[in-house]
Amino acid sequence: MPRSIALVGFDADDTLWHSETHFQAAHAEFERIVGGYVDLADAGVHERLLATERENIRLFGYGAKGMTLSMIETAIALTGARISAADLHRIVELGKAILRHPVELLPGVRAAVEAVAATHRVVLVTKGDLFHQERKVAESGLAGLFQRIEVVSEKDTASYARLLAEFDLEPARFAMVGNSCKSDIAPVLALGGWGIHVPYPLVWALEQAEVDSAHPRFAKVARLDEVPAVLAGWG
Amino acid sequence: MPRSIALVGFDADDTLWHSETHFQAAHAEFERIVGGYVDLADAGVHERLLATERENIRLFGYGAKGMTLSMIETAIALTGARISAADLHRIVELGKAILRHPVELLPGVRAAVEAVAATHRVVLVTKGDLFHQERKVAESGLAGLFQRIEVVSEKDTASYARLLAEFDLEPARFAMVGNSCKSDIAPVLALGGWGIHVPYPLVWALEQAEVDSAHPRFAKVARLDEVPAVLAGWG
Repeated sequence: MPRSIALVGFDADDTLWHSETHFQAAHAEFERIVGGYVDLADAGVHERLLATERENIRLFGYGAKGMTLSMIETAIALTGARISAADLHRIVELGKAILRHPVELLPGVRAAVEAVAATHRVVLVTKGDLFHQERKVAESGLAGLFQRIEVVSEKDTASYARLLAEFDLEPARFAMVGNSCKSDIAPVLALGGWGIHVPYPLVWALEQAEVDSAHPRFAKVARLDEVPAVLAGWG
Repeated sequence: MPRSIALVGFDADDTLWHSETHFQAAHAEFERIVGGYVDLADAGVHERLLATERENIRLFGYGAKGMTLSMIETAIALTGARISAADLHRIVELGKAILRHPVELLPGVRAAVEAVAATHRVVLVTKGDLFHQERKVAESGLAGLFQRIEVVSEKDTASYARLLAEFDLEPARFAMVGNSCKSDIAPVLALGGWGIHVPYPLVWALEQAEVDSAHPRFAKVARLDEVPAVLAGWG
Protein backbone atom coordinates (compact mmCIF):
# COMPACT_ATOMS: atom_id res chain seq x y z
CA MET A 1 0.00 0.00 0.00
CA PRO A 2 1.41 3.40 -0.93
CA ARG A 3 2.23 5.62 2.03
CA SER A 4 2.32 8.95 0.17
CA ILE A 5 -0.14 11.83 0.51
CA ALA A 6 -3.31 10.87 -1.36
CA LEU A 7 -5.78 13.58 -0.37
CA VAL A 8 -5.24 17.33 -0.12
CA GLY A 9 -7.73 19.60 1.64
CA PHE A 10 -7.99 23.29 0.86
CA ASP A 11 -9.48 25.86 3.17
CA ALA A 12 -11.62 28.47 1.36
CA ASP A 13 -11.94 31.88 3.11
CA ASP A 14 -8.61 33.77 2.99
CA THR A 15 -6.94 30.78 1.33
CA LEU A 16 -8.73 30.67 -2.04
CA TRP A 17 -10.45 34.05 -1.86
CA HIS A 18 -10.57 37.26 0.20
CA SER A 19 -12.86 37.17 3.24
CA GLU A 20 -11.43 38.70 6.43
CA THR A 21 -10.86 41.99 4.57
CA HIS A 22 -14.63 42.31 4.17
CA PHE A 23 -15.36 41.36 7.79
CA GLN A 24 -12.82 43.89 9.09
CA ALA A 25 -14.23 46.61 6.83
CA ALA A 26 -17.68 45.88 8.31
CA HIS A 27 -16.21 46.09 11.83
CA ALA A 28 -14.63 49.46 11.01
CA GLU A 29 -17.94 50.82 9.70
CA PHE A 30 -19.70 49.41 12.79
CA GLU A 31 -17.29 51.41 14.97
CA ARG A 32 -18.02 54.58 12.98
CA ILE A 33 -21.76 54.10 13.54
CA VAL A 34 -21.43 53.37 17.27
CA GLY A 35 -18.88 56.20 17.51
CA GLY A 36 -21.78 58.58 16.89
CA TYR A 37 -23.11 57.64 20.34
CA VAL A 38 -20.14 56.78 22.54
CA ASP A 39 -16.40 57.38 22.79
CA LEU A 40 -14.95 54.32 21.07
CA ALA A 41 -11.92 53.93 23.33
CA ASP A 42 -13.72 54.76 26.60
CA ALA A 43 -16.50 52.32 25.78
CA GLY A 44 -14.04 49.61 24.67
CA VAL A 45 -16.14 49.07 21.53
CA HIS A 46 -13.67 46.76 19.82
CA GLU A 47 -13.30 44.53 22.87
CA ARG A 48 -17.04 44.49 23.60
CA LEU A 49 -17.86 43.36 20.06
CA LEU A 50 -15.24 40.63 20.26
CA ALA A 51 -16.58 39.46 23.63
CA THR A 52 -20.14 39.35 22.27
CA GLU A 53 -19.00 37.42 19.20
CA ARG A 54 -17.06 34.95 21.33
CA GLU A 55 -20.11 34.39 23.55
CA ASN A 56 -22.55 34.13 20.64
CA ILE A 57 -20.47 31.73 18.56
CA ARG A 58 -21.62 28.97 20.90
CA LEU A 59 -25.17 29.73 19.76
CA PHE A 60 -24.70 31.14 16.25
CA GLY A 61 -21.64 29.35 14.89
CA TYR A 62 -19.44 31.22 12.40
CA GLY A 63 -20.43 33.50 9.55
CA ALA A 64 -21.79 36.87 8.54
CA LYS A 65 -25.37 36.44 9.84
CA GLY A 66 -24.20 35.65 13.37
CA MET A 67 -21.67 38.48 13.21
CA THR A 68 -24.43 40.90 12.18
CA LEU A 69 -26.65 39.85 15.09
CA SER A 70 -23.65 40.23 17.44
CA MET A 71 -23.00 43.75 16.09
CA ILE A 72 -26.66 44.68 16.65
CA GLU A 73 -26.61 43.36 20.21
CA THR A 74 -23.33 45.10 21.00
CA ALA A 75 -24.52 48.42 19.53
CA ILE A 76 -27.71 48.33 21.62
CA ALA A 77 -25.82 47.41 24.80
CA LEU A 78 -23.05 49.99 24.33
CA THR A 79 -25.45 52.85 23.64
CA GLY A 80 -27.82 51.95 26.46
CA ALA A 81 -30.45 51.33 23.74
CA ARG A 82 -30.10 54.94 22.52
CA ILE A 83 -29.06 53.89 19.00
CA SER A 84 -31.66 54.70 16.34
CA ALA A 85 -33.43 52.06 14.28
CA ALA A 86 -32.00 53.74 11.18
CA ASP A 87 -28.45 53.15 12.44
CA LEU A 88 -29.29 49.56 13.37
CA HIS A 89 -30.55 49.13 9.84
CA ARG A 90 -27.15 50.32 8.56
CA ILE A 91 -25.60 47.51 10.64
CA VAL A 92 -27.97 44.95 9.07
CA GLU A 93 -26.85 46.25 5.68
CA LEU A 94 -23.18 45.70 6.62
CA GLY A 95 -23.92 42.03 7.06
CA LYS A 96 -25.89 41.82 3.82
CA ALA A 97 -23.03 43.53 1.96
CA ILE A 98 -20.64 40.77 3.11
CA LEU A 99 -23.08 38.10 1.94
CA ARG A 100 -23.50 39.85 -1.42
CA HIS A 101 -19.81 40.58 -2.01
CA PRO A 102 -18.47 38.99 -5.22
CA VAL A 103 -15.83 36.32 -4.79
CA GLU A 104 -12.30 37.62 -5.44
CA LEU A 105 -9.80 34.80 -5.90
CA LEU A 106 -6.34 35.24 -4.40
CA PRO A 107 -3.37 35.24 -6.84
CA GLY A 108 -2.51 31.97 -8.57
CA VAL A 109 -5.35 30.03 -6.93
CA ARG A 110 -6.89 28.32 -9.95
CA ALA A 111 -3.54 27.17 -11.35
CA ALA A 112 -2.42 25.92 -7.93
CA VAL A 113 -5.57 23.89 -7.28
CA GLU A 114 -5.48 22.50 -10.83
CA ALA A 115 -1.86 21.44 -10.38
CA VAL A 116 -2.61 19.65 -7.11
CA ALA A 117 -5.77 18.08 -8.56
CA ALA A 118 -3.68 16.59 -11.38
CA THR A 119 -1.72 14.49 -8.88
CA HIS A 120 -3.97 14.13 -5.81
CA ARG A 121 -7.61 13.92 -4.83
CA VAL A 122 -8.62 17.35 -3.55
CA VAL A 123 -11.40 18.41 -1.21
CA LEU A 124 -12.53 21.80 -0.02
CA VAL A 125 -12.94 21.99 3.77
CA THR A 126 -14.48 25.16 5.11
CA LYS A 127 -16.40 26.26 8.15
CA GLY A 128 -19.04 28.89 8.60
CA ASP A 129 -22.35 29.60 7.04
CA LEU A 130 -23.39 26.69 4.78
CA PHE A 131 -25.46 28.82 2.41
CA HIS A 132 -22.87 31.58 2.02
CA GLN A 133 -20.00 29.11 1.58
CA GLU A 134 -21.90 27.18 -1.09
CA ARG A 135 -22.65 30.40 -2.95
CA LYS A 136 -18.99 31.40 -2.91
CA VAL A 137 -17.84 27.96 -4.05
CA ALA A 138 -20.33 28.08 -6.95
CA GLU A 139 -19.34 31.62 -7.89
CA SER A 140 -15.60 30.87 -7.68
CA GLY A 141 -15.77 28.54 -10.68
CA LEU A 142 -13.55 26.09 -8.75
CA ALA A 143 -16.24 23.61 -7.61
CA GLY A 144 -15.52 21.16 -10.44
CA LEU A 145 -11.92 20.71 -9.26
CA PHE A 146 -12.93 19.30 -5.87
CA GLN A 147 -13.94 15.70 -5.14
CA ARG A 148 -16.06 16.96 -2.29
CA ILE A 149 -17.10 20.27 -0.72
CA GLU A 150 -17.23 19.84 3.03
CA VAL A 151 -18.76 22.67 5.08
CA VAL A 152 -18.30 21.94 8.77
CA SER A 153 -19.44 23.84 11.83
CA GLU A 154 -16.01 23.65 13.50
CA LYS A 155 -12.61 22.65 12.08
CA ASP A 156 -11.30 20.55 14.92
CA THR A 157 -9.69 17.11 15.15
CA ALA A 158 -13.14 15.45 15.33
CA SER A 159 -14.24 17.06 12.04
CA TYR A 160 -11.04 16.06 10.23
CA ALA A 161 -11.17 12.54 11.68
CA ARG A 162 -14.74 12.16 10.36
CA LEU A 163 -13.73 13.41 6.92
CA LEU A 164 -10.80 10.97 6.77
CA ALA A 165 -13.04 8.12 7.89
CA GLU A 166 -15.41 8.91 5.02
CA PHE A 167 -12.47 8.72 2.61
CA ASP A 168 -11.20 5.60 4.41
CA LEU A 169 -7.78 7.24 4.69
CA GLU A 170 -5.09 7.33 7.39
CA PRO A 171 -4.20 10.85 8.58
CA ALA A 172 -0.59 10.35 7.39
CA ARG A 173 -1.92 10.39 3.82
CA PHE A 174 -3.78 13.72 4.21
CA ALA A 175 -2.40 17.24 3.84
CA MET A 176 -4.37 20.39 4.62
CA VAL A 177 -3.67 23.78 3.05
CA GLY A 178 -4.96 26.95 4.68
CA ASN A 179 -4.38 30.35 6.25
CA SER A 180 -5.47 29.48 9.79
CA CYS A 181 -3.04 27.69 12.08
CA LYS A 182 -5.89 27.11 14.52
CA SER A 183 -8.40 25.64 12.07
CA ASP A 184 -6.37 24.29 9.16
CA ILE A 185 -2.99 23.25 10.53
CA ALA A 186 -2.94 22.40 14.26
CA PRO A 187 -5.80 19.83 14.28
CA VAL A 188 -4.44 18.05 11.19
CA LEU A 189 -0.90 17.84 12.63
CA ALA A 190 -2.40 16.56 15.89
CA LEU A 191 -4.09 13.71 13.99
CA GLY A 192 -0.84 12.76 12.24
CA GLY A 193 -1.48 14.57 8.96
CA TRP A 194 0.45 17.26 7.09
CA GLY A 195 -0.11 21.03 7.12
CA ILE A 196 0.77 23.78 4.65
CA HIS A 197 0.24 27.24 6.06
CA VAL A 198 -0.44 30.05 3.55
CA PRO A 199 -0.82 33.17 5.69
CA TYR A 200 -3.33 35.89 4.83
CA PRO A 201 -2.40 39.45 5.91
CA LEU A 202 -5.37 39.67 8.31
CA VAL A 203 -6.34 37.14 10.97
CA TRP A 204 -9.55 37.40 12.98
CA ALA A 205 -8.82 37.64 16.72
CA LEU A 206 -10.73 34.40 17.39
CA GLU A 207 -8.60 32.50 14.83
CA GLN A 208 -5.18 33.39 16.22
CA ALA A 209 -2.95 30.47 17.19
CA GLU A 210 0.66 29.38 16.94
CA VAL A 211 2.12 26.28 15.39
CA ASP A 212 5.68 24.94 15.75
CA SER A 213 7.33 25.88 12.44
CA ALA A 214 9.95 23.15 12.95
CA HIS A 215 7.26 20.43 12.92
CA PRO A 216 8.39 17.69 10.49
CA ARG A 217 5.03 17.59 8.69
CA PHE A 218 4.61 21.38 8.42
CA ALA A 219 5.49 23.91 5.74
CA LYS A 220 4.77 27.60 5.34
CA VAL A 221 4.54 29.24 1.92
CA ALA A 222 3.77 32.78 0.82
CA ARG A 223 1.42 31.94 -2.04
CA LEU A 224 -0.83 29.04 -3.01
CA ASP A 225 1.17 28.35 -6.19
CA GLU A 226 4.06 27.11 -4.03
CA VAL A 227 1.91 24.26 -2.70
CA PRO A 228 2.49 21.74 -5.54
CA ALA A 229 6.28 21.90 -5.02
CA VAL A 230 5.91 21.34 -1.26
CA LEU A 231 3.72 18.29 -1.89
CA ALA A 232 6.20 16.97 -4.48
CA GLY A 233 8.99 17.38 -1.91
CA TRP A 234 7.03 15.37 0.65
CA GLY A 235 6.49 12.60 -1.90
CA MET B 1 -28.76 -7.02 -7.77
CA PRO B 2 -31.59 -6.49 -5.29
CA ARG B 3 -34.11 -3.87 -6.38
CA SER B 4 -35.61 -3.17 -2.97
CA ILE B 5 -35.31 0.04 -0.96
CA ALA B 6 -31.81 0.12 0.56
CA LEU B 7 -31.52 3.63 1.97
CA VAL B 8 -34.09 5.64 3.95
CA GLY B 9 -33.71 9.36 4.51
CA PHE B 10 -35.36 11.14 7.42
CA ASP B 11 -36.06 14.85 7.54
CA ALA B 12 -35.40 16.41 10.95
CA ASP B 13 -37.38 19.59 11.78
CA ASP B 14 -41.08 18.78 12.29
CA THR B 15 -40.42 15.13 11.39
CA LEU B 16 -38.20 14.00 14.28
CA TRP B 17 -38.71 17.00 16.57
CA HIS B 18 -40.82 20.14 16.96
CA SER B 19 -39.59 23.21 15.08
CA GLU B 20 -42.26 25.24 13.27
CA THR B 21 -44.14 25.66 16.55
CA HIS B 22 -41.19 27.68 17.88
CA PHE B 23 -40.87 29.74 14.69
CA GLN B 24 -44.57 30.58 14.70
CA ALA B 25 -44.44 31.51 18.37
CA ALA B 26 -41.58 33.91 17.55
CA HIS B 27 -43.64 35.38 14.67
CA ALA B 28 -46.58 35.93 17.01
CA GLU B 29 -44.38 37.72 19.55
CA PHE B 30 -42.84 39.77 16.71
CA GLU B 31 -46.35 40.91 15.75
CA ARG B 32 -47.09 41.90 19.35
CA ILE B 33 -43.92 44.04 19.41
CA VAL B 34 -44.58 45.72 16.06
CA GLY B 35 -48.25 46.08 17.04
CA GLY B 36 -47.09 48.65 19.59
CA TYR B 37 -46.24 50.96 16.67
CA VAL B 38 -48.63 50.17 13.81
CA ASP B 39 -52.02 48.61 13.21
CA LEU B 40 -51.14 45.01 12.35
CA ALA B 41 -53.86 44.50 9.73
CA ASP B 42 -53.54 47.94 8.13
CA ALA B 43 -49.79 47.60 7.85
CA GLY B 44 -50.04 44.02 6.53
CA VAL B 45 -47.39 42.94 9.06
CA HIS B 46 -47.75 39.22 8.44
CA GLU B 47 -47.47 39.61 4.65
CA ARG B 48 -44.59 42.08 4.87
CA LEU B 49 -42.55 39.73 7.06
CA LEU B 50 -43.22 36.86 4.69
CA ALA B 51 -42.20 38.98 1.68
CA THR B 52 -38.97 40.05 3.42
CA GLU B 53 -38.18 36.45 4.36
CA ARG B 54 -38.84 35.26 0.81
CA GLU B 55 -36.54 37.98 -0.58
CA ASN B 56 -33.80 37.40 2.00
CA ILE B 57 -33.71 33.61 1.68
CA ARG B 58 -31.76 34.10 -1.52
CA LEU B 59 -29.07 35.79 0.57
CA PHE B 60 -29.49 34.19 4.01
CA GLY B 61 -30.68 30.67 3.30
CA TYR B 62 -32.96 29.00 5.86
CA GLY B 63 -32.79 29.14 9.63
CA ALA B 64 -33.33 31.18 12.75
CA LYS B 65 -30.50 33.70 12.26
CA GLY B 66 -31.76 34.76 8.84
CA MET B 67 -35.33 34.89 10.14
CA THR B 68 -34.21 37.16 12.99
CA LEU B 69 -32.47 39.55 10.60
CA SER B 70 -35.60 39.55 8.41
CA MET B 71 -37.77 40.36 11.44
CA ILE B 72 -35.45 43.26 12.37
CA GLU B 73 -35.52 44.64 8.82
CA THR B 74 -39.29 44.31 8.59
CA ALA B 75 -39.86 45.96 11.97
CA ILE B 76 -37.68 48.94 11.00
CA ALA B 77 -39.37 49.32 7.61
CA LEU B 78 -42.94 48.97 8.94
CA THR B 79 -42.43 51.50 11.73
CA GLY B 80 -40.62 54.03 9.54
CA ALA B 81 -37.59 53.45 11.80
CA ARG B 82 -39.59 54.58 14.86
CA ILE B 83 -39.10 51.28 16.68
CA SER B 84 -36.87 51.52 19.76
CA ALA B 85 -33.54 49.76 20.10
CA ALA B 86 -34.96 48.04 23.19
CA ASP B 87 -37.76 46.52 21.11
CA LEU B 88 -35.31 45.50 18.39
CA HIS B 89 -33.31 43.80 21.11
CA ARG B 90 -36.42 41.84 22.07
CA ILE B 91 -36.56 40.64 18.46
CA VAL B 92 -32.91 39.51 18.60
CA GLU B 93 -33.81 37.57 21.74
CA LEU B 94 -36.68 35.83 19.92
CA GLY B 95 -34.13 34.39 17.49
CA LYS B 96 -31.76 33.39 20.25
CA ALA B 97 -34.60 31.66 22.09
CA ILE B 98 -35.26 29.48 19.04
CA LEU B 99 -31.57 28.58 18.83
CA ARG B 100 -31.48 27.76 22.54
CA HIS B 101 -34.73 25.78 22.66
CA PRO B 102 -34.25 22.20 23.86
CA VAL B 103 -35.01 19.47 21.33
CA GLU B 104 -38.43 17.87 21.88
CA LEU B 105 -38.80 14.60 19.99
CA LEU B 106 -42.16 13.85 18.35
CA PRO B 107 -44.02 10.73 19.57
CA GLY B 108 -42.54 7.34 18.74
CA VAL B 109 -39.54 8.80 16.92
CA ARG B 110 -36.70 6.82 18.49
CA ALA B 111 -38.47 3.47 18.15
CA ALA B 112 -39.41 4.24 14.54
CA VAL B 113 -35.89 5.22 13.48
CA GLU B 114 -34.44 2.22 15.34
CA ALA B 115 -36.88 -0.14 13.58
CA VAL B 116 -35.99 1.26 10.15
CA ALA B 117 -32.26 1.23 10.97
CA ALA B 118 -32.52 -2.49 11.77
CA THR B 119 -33.48 -3.27 8.16
CA HIS B 120 -32.12 -0.35 6.08
CA ARG B 121 -29.28 2.12 5.99
CA VAL B 122 -30.64 5.42 7.30
CA VAL B 123 -29.47 8.99 6.75
CA LEU B 124 -30.68 12.27 8.15
CA VAL B 125 -31.26 14.91 5.47
CA THR B 126 -32.04 18.38 6.70
CA LYS B 127 -31.76 21.92 5.45
CA GLY B 128 -31.18 25.15 7.26
CA ASP B 129 -28.57 26.41 9.61
CA LEU B 130 -25.64 23.95 9.79
CA PHE B 131 -24.63 24.88 13.33
CA HIS B 132 -28.16 24.80 14.75
CA GLN B 133 -29.02 21.54 12.98
CA GLU B 134 -25.85 19.85 14.25
CA ARG B 135 -26.61 20.98 17.79
CA LYS B 136 -30.14 19.56 17.58
CA VAL B 137 -28.93 16.27 16.13
CA ALA B 138 -26.37 15.94 18.94
CA GLU B 139 -28.92 16.84 21.60
CA SER B 140 -31.56 14.47 20.18
CA GLY B 141 -29.48 11.42 21.08
CA LEU B 142 -30.35 9.97 17.66
CA ALA B 143 -27.06 10.73 15.86
CA GLY B 144 -25.68 7.24 16.36
CA LEU B 145 -28.59 5.70 14.43
CA PHE B 146 -27.74 7.50 11.18
CA GLN B 147 -25.09 6.46 8.66
CA ARG B 148 -24.69 10.06 7.68
CA ILE B 149 -26.01 13.47 8.74
CA GLU B 150 -26.46 15.59 5.63
CA VAL B 151 -27.22 19.29 6.12
CA VAL B 152 -27.97 20.87 2.74
CA SER B 153 -28.75 24.45 1.81
CA GLU B 154 -31.79 23.47 -0.30
CA LYS B 155 -33.66 20.16 -0.56
CA ASP B 156 -34.17 19.96 -4.31
CA THR B 157 -33.62 17.23 -6.90
CA ALA B 158 -29.97 18.31 -7.32
CA SER B 159 -29.25 17.83 -3.59
CA TYR B 160 -30.90 14.40 -3.49
CA ALA B 161 -29.16 13.34 -6.72
CA ARG B 162 -25.79 14.31 -5.19
CA LEU B 163 -26.57 12.37 -2.00
CA LEU B 164 -27.55 9.26 -3.98
CA ALA B 165 -24.41 9.54 -6.13
CA GLU B 166 -22.32 9.56 -2.93
CA PHE B 167 -24.09 6.36 -1.84
CA ASP B 168 -23.77 4.98 -5.39
CA LEU B 169 -27.49 4.19 -5.33
CA GLU B 170 -30.30 4.41 -7.91
CA PRO B 171 -33.21 6.64 -6.88
CA ALA B 172 -35.60 3.64 -7.03
CA ARG B 173 -33.79 2.23 -4.00
CA PHE B 174 -34.20 5.40 -1.88
CA ALA B 175 -37.17 6.42 0.26
CA MET B 176 -37.48 9.78 2.00
CA VAL B 177 -39.59 10.37 5.13
CA GLY B 178 -40.63 13.89 6.06
CA ASN B 179 -43.30 16.46 6.82
CA SER B 180 -42.70 18.73 3.83
CA CYS B 181 -44.16 17.74 0.46
CA LYS B 182 -42.07 20.48 -1.14
CA SER B 183 -38.71 19.53 0.37
CA ASP B 184 -38.99 15.87 1.35
CA ILE B 185 -41.42 14.26 -1.06
CA ALA B 186 -41.80 16.01 -4.44
CA PRO B 187 -38.08 16.12 -5.42
CA VAL B 188 -37.54 12.48 -4.42
CA LEU B 189 -40.59 11.28 -6.40
CA ALA B 190 -39.36 13.36 -9.37
CA LEU B 191 -36.04 11.52 -9.29
CA GLY B 192 -37.76 8.11 -9.22
CA GLY B 193 -37.54 7.51 -5.48
CA TRP B 194 -40.19 6.84 -2.81
CA GLY B 195 -41.79 9.31 -0.43
CA ILE B 196 -43.51 8.89 2.94
CA HIS B 197 -45.30 12.01 4.09
CA VAL B 198 -45.74 12.48 7.86
CA PRO B 199 -47.62 15.78 8.20
CA TYR B 200 -46.91 18.20 11.03
CA PRO B 201 -49.84 20.36 12.18
CA LEU B 202 -48.09 23.59 11.13
CA VAL B 203 -46.49 24.31 7.75
CA TRP B 204 -44.47 27.44 7.06
CA ALA B 205 -45.99 29.45 4.19
CA LEU B 206 -42.81 29.06 2.12
CA GLU B 207 -42.93 25.26 2.45
CA GLN B 208 -46.46 24.73 1.21
CA ALA B 209 -46.88 22.41 -1.77
CA GLU B 210 -49.14 19.64 -3.04
CA VAL B 211 -48.27 16.11 -4.05
CA ASP B 212 -50.48 13.60 -5.90
CA SER B 213 -51.62 11.24 -3.15
CA ALA B 214 -52.33 8.53 -5.77
CA HIS B 215 -48.67 8.45 -6.81
CA PRO B 216 -47.54 4.78 -6.85
CA ARG B 217 -44.40 5.48 -4.82
CA PHE B 218 -46.08 7.71 -2.22
CA ALA B 219 -47.62 7.04 1.17
CA LYS B 220 -48.99 9.29 3.88
CA VAL B 221 -48.97 8.29 7.54
CA ALA B 222 -50.05 10.06 10.71
CA ARG B 223 -47.09 9.13 12.89
CA LEU B 224 -43.49 8.13 12.35
CA ASP B 225 -44.02 4.69 13.93
CA GLU B 226 -46.14 3.70 10.91
CA VAL B 227 -43.12 4.07 8.61
CA PRO B 228 -41.59 0.58 9.14
CA ALA B 229 -44.85 -1.10 8.02
CA VAL B 230 -45.04 1.06 4.89
CA LEU B 231 -41.46 0.15 3.97
CA ALA B 232 -42.17 -3.53 4.62
CA GLY B 233 -45.20 -3.29 2.31
CA TRP B 234 -43.06 -1.81 -0.46
CA GLY B 235 -40.54 -4.64 -0.08
